[in-house]
Amino acid sequence: MKKKLNGINVLYPTPTVLVGALVDGKPNYVTIAHIGIVNHARPYLISLSSAKAHYTNAGIKENKAFSVNIPSENLVVETDYVGLVSGKNTDKSDLFEIFYGEVENAPMIKQCPVNMECRLYDIYDTATHDLFIGEIVETHADESVLTGGKIDLSKLKPLLFDMSSIKYWSVGKVVADCWKVGKQLKGR
Amino acid sequence: MKKKLNGINVLYPTPTVLVGALVDGKPNYVTIAHIGIVNHARPYLISLSSAKAHYTNAGIKENKAFSVNIPSENLVVETDYVGLVSGKNTDKSDLFEIFYGEVENAPMIKQCPVNMECRLYDIYDTATHDLFIGEIVETHADESVLTGGKIDLSKLKPLLFDMSSIKYWSVGKVVADCWKVGKQLKGR
Repeated sequence: MKKKLNGINVLYPTPTVLVGALVDGKPNYVTIAHIGIVNHARPYLISLSSAKAHYTNAGIKENKAFSVNIPSENLVVETDYVGLVSGKNTDKSDLFEIFYGEVENAPMIKQCPVNMECRLYDIYDTATHDLFIGEIVETHADESVLTGGKIDLSKLKPLLFDMSSIKYWSVGKVVADCWKVGKQLKGR
Repeated sequence: MKKKLNGINVLYPTPTVLVGALVDGKPNYVTIAHIGIVNHARPYLISLSSAKAHYTNAGIKENKAFSVNIPSENLVVETDYVGLVSGKNTDKSDLFEIFYGEVENAPMIKQCPVNMECRLYDIYDTATHDLFIGEIVETHADESVLTGGKIDLSKLKPLLFDMSSIKYWSVGKVVADCWKVGKQLKGR
């Protein structure tokens, strides 16, 4: 039996990221889980939905640059805190150590094991949210979360956001191989 | 020590969905994990990135309607199969039972415990992919995946897609409460 849920979005869980940008020359961070993948071709484009009131938005627009940093479970307190306090009132610049790559003005968070430095490619405007579309210029990862040179989710332990339960969830186990497990139905 | 990963997108895992649309009047399905959340306001907007070659794209454009269906782990074979064969060569219309809601021409999959019927709101064009932006008109869920009227991920058991390992992963356990666990850092 199906129940109607009044048209809410239930496209969860999604990875929680810390977005870094310079605002008035100082690093600031915002927690975002309303992410998106725009294409699967170079340059790789990803999207971030950020309420227009967010302090970081002005910095992204001014510098046309930002970073997307993936925290592990051990950073859950810091990740949640970043989403609770605004850079308008609270200086978050000392919360993390930062490093830079190729993109000027895209401060990346050392403590996050995975980082993507992005140039602002476009903004898709909505009434309430700026959808920032970023072009990934370079991707950085701690060796400790790699297996065979690729990111290993069981080592990365990203925080999955779910709006229904308002909780962060962990990644579980491998269920099956993509583009493979379905082959048994071919020619059905 | 950080390693460079040549600018690849590592914004995973994301929920795997089956997108339903009518093509030449017949239900067809495409497997998509390159999803996005565009805003957090009514009408809720979500995005789906679909390579331009996909058979379903024409149907979405023609009918300006589609459905987003979330399969559970028990549908992993069917979900993967839908991504392996094209509607160009294979009739997938008999793979699932369908039902309709308010949106004409948005066939939803009964076997998927969660369904969102969408009107096509916009298409954000890229060189290789159509980014379909859908307005959620109604959301349907099996009672069996609800707890207190809300979707319970531990019951839904969505398939999380990861491009690094090319595997489907399960959802794990609750790590912490959002907008709560970070409060301990306030006034630090």
